Amino acid sequence: MTADPPAPRRTGKAGSGRRGALPIALDAVGGDYGAAPNVEGAVQAARAGVPVLLVGERTRLHAELGRHAGSGTLPIEVVDAPDLITMDDHATDVRRRPEASINVCTRLVREGRAAAAVSMGHSGATMTSALFTLGRIRGVDRPAILTHLPAQGGFTTLLDAGANTDVRPAYLAQWAQLASVYLRVLEGHENPTVGLLSIGEEDHKGSQLVLDTHALLRELHGQGRLNFHGNVEGNDIFKNTTDIVVTDGFTGNVVLKLAEGEAKVLFGWVKDALTRDLKSKLGALLVRGSLRSLAERLDPSTYGASILIGVRGLAFIGHGKSDARAVKNALLRASRAHEADLVSRLEAAFAEQAGPGTVG
Amino acid sequence: MTADPPAPRRTGKAGSGRRGALPIALDAVGGDYGAAPNVEGAVQAARAGVPVLLVGERTRLHAELGRHAGSGTLPIEVVDAPDLITMDDHATDVRRRPEASINVCTRLVREGRAAAAVSMGHSGATMTSALFTLGRIRGVDRPAILTHLPAQGGFTTLLDAGANTDVRPAYLAQWAQLASVYLRVLEGHENPTVGLLSIGEEDHKGSQLVLDTHALLRELHGQGRLNFHGNVEGNDIFKNTTDIVVTDGFTGNVVLKLAEGEAKVLFGWVKDALTRDLKSKLGALLVRGSLRSLAERLDPSTYGASILIGVRGLAFIGHGKSDARAVKNALLRASRAHEADLVSRLEAAFAEQAGPGTVG
Repeated sequence: MTADPPAPRRTGKAGSGRRGALPIALDAVGGDYGAAPNVEGAVQAARAGVPVLLVGERTRLHAELGRHAGSGTLPIEVVDAPDLITMDDHATDVRRRPEASINVCTRLVREGRAAAAVSMGHSGATMTSALFTLGRIRGVDRPAILTHLPAQGGFTTLLDAGANTDVRPAYLAQWAQLASVYLRVLEGHENPTVGLLSIGEEDHKGSQLVLDTHALLRELHGQGRLNFHGNVEGNDIFKNTTDIVVTDGFTGNVVLKLAEGEAKVLFGWVKDALTRDLKSKLGALLVRGSLRSLAERLDPSTYGASILIGVRGLAFIGHGKSDARAVKNALLRASRAHEADLVSRLEAAFAEQAGPGTVG
Repeated sequence: MTADPPAPRRTGKAGSGRRGALPIALDAVGGDYGAAPNVEGAVQAARAGVPVLLVGERTRLHAELGRHAGSGTLPIEVVDAPDLITMDDHATDVRRRPEASINVCTRLVREGRAAAAVSMGHSGATMTSALFTLGRIRGVDRPAILTHLPAQGGFTTLLDAGANTDVRPAYLAQWAQLASVYLRVLEGHENPTVGLLSIGEEDHKGSQLVLDTHALLRELHGQGRLNFHGNVEGNDIFKNTTDIVVTDGFTGNVVLKLAEGEAKVLFGWVKDALTRDLKSKLGALLVRGSLRSLAERLDPSTYGASILIGVRGLAFIGHGKSDARAVKNALLRASRAHEADLVSRLEAAFAEQAGPGTVG
């Protein structure tokens, strides 16, 4: 069941072309809980038909696999990578440790031997590794983390959720375009609306960055390159006023963590309220089922992981506290993105508009 | 019941000194719903012992007051101000319309004839009016909007919630100090902890603004001027990791609106879940009481309004969609701040540290 790292072989068309049977490379020891949830999630994904390469310390991964009866017949292989970037390391350490598991994952993608890299480990290291190993799509200055938040009527797509803290208007405009293609290709949204996160709906409200970005998005809208709705505010995210919300990676990261943290605390309060007295406890027995499906909807594991969009290959970044369900969903999502040929579609969209305009 | 605007009389110690009997000036036609909730809230506050000056178009306010039986015996007076800044106006319009109701409110404070100005109307106009009429506390570069968010174990104090979109590290350091004094004076928190909103707990994570502010807060902590905990993340706000969270006014405004919007949507989902089927509906009847007190805790009206901290006088900015309860709570809060002599205490704290250091 172990695949020794084969000799490097470049395909030239990283992340595109060879669809279907290609496995997903999972950084299988990354994340706060180590190998256990990663391997369990991989087993679940493999049972659902997605082949997986478990990348990490071979002995640990084999031991973990051994705990899942029948895993020997599943499309799972172990790729040895004894070095691991931990939360105590700096993101940049990844550049001088080529044998770290995340680097092995992204190299497998670059060499056309894996469809995507997925990691629940050090986010910064994953971004750095993906960026330097896979490179950027032509016309994209900075890749961004694209994530989904539950919202009225479905979900709102938010980016950048944390890859870039200090940004320029052109980055946000590129992200809006990347996300538009993403939703078209993966979710069948033909003409998704784009909102620019600000502190007022009015065009003249916001920071200098927002004012400049607003003008740029307006221009791209006029050229038919995206469907710009205008400024949106914090409360519009859960209202799903627009399909996509673009913002800098600082604000986006705060938004993502606040949204998750608030859902957790509020749900805890609802639970407390339901056990406050005998009457409430009795009622709680009756509403338990309904509330459980709501809790599931709010659980970040439902989305699995966020894509690092704009790199020339598929890379997904998950929560350090991911459980097996999150790992499984991340692997399925990665597989879907590969089957839809997402990276080629993104490249094509940016190639089309090369020439005049700010992007391209 | 009508008080004509008396001849201007400056007290020299605006916002301090004459405590107790001084009324609160309410911009009584401001806000999305006009006079009705303002007057109703004023009547409730007056019944609770807080005298109010209703500032706005005299005829409308008298008509509205007439709808409240017995209001003639309450400590409420009407101050005529026919001009009103609406949401269609720019915040800067306030400077060339001296008779606009919000300007009359802040002038009443400056002249020592009102304890505080409270408005549910145009936030930008209120800030501009307060800043230009009342001036800044010596040592404060930019006033900030200080607000409270419900959190585990109580509430978290957040600033700036939207007054300043483009900021400098020194502003955030001053806000941290202003909020520390505020919590000491009004909430009895002897040594409140300060968190700097970032995208990672680690000192080296964040935007350039955060890195520079972090260094400054560390320095002030070393000098015993505040109790700096370090960086906090979006999820720490509802966890109440620190008493105070400081951030720029762009991020803070997004946080505030997202937090309110998410609570609203999530609570709506809980309600939907509780009416999904007969079993849930039955259970809902039993848990209704417990959930109602939770809903109240999450309702922004509970806090009433946010203080514009750093101006030389008391000014409170409320939600455009404020109901009578929010107006009442804002007036009570304003009265408490006046009775606690907040502005003088803030001035004293900044005067003490004049001299060396970044602030002063």
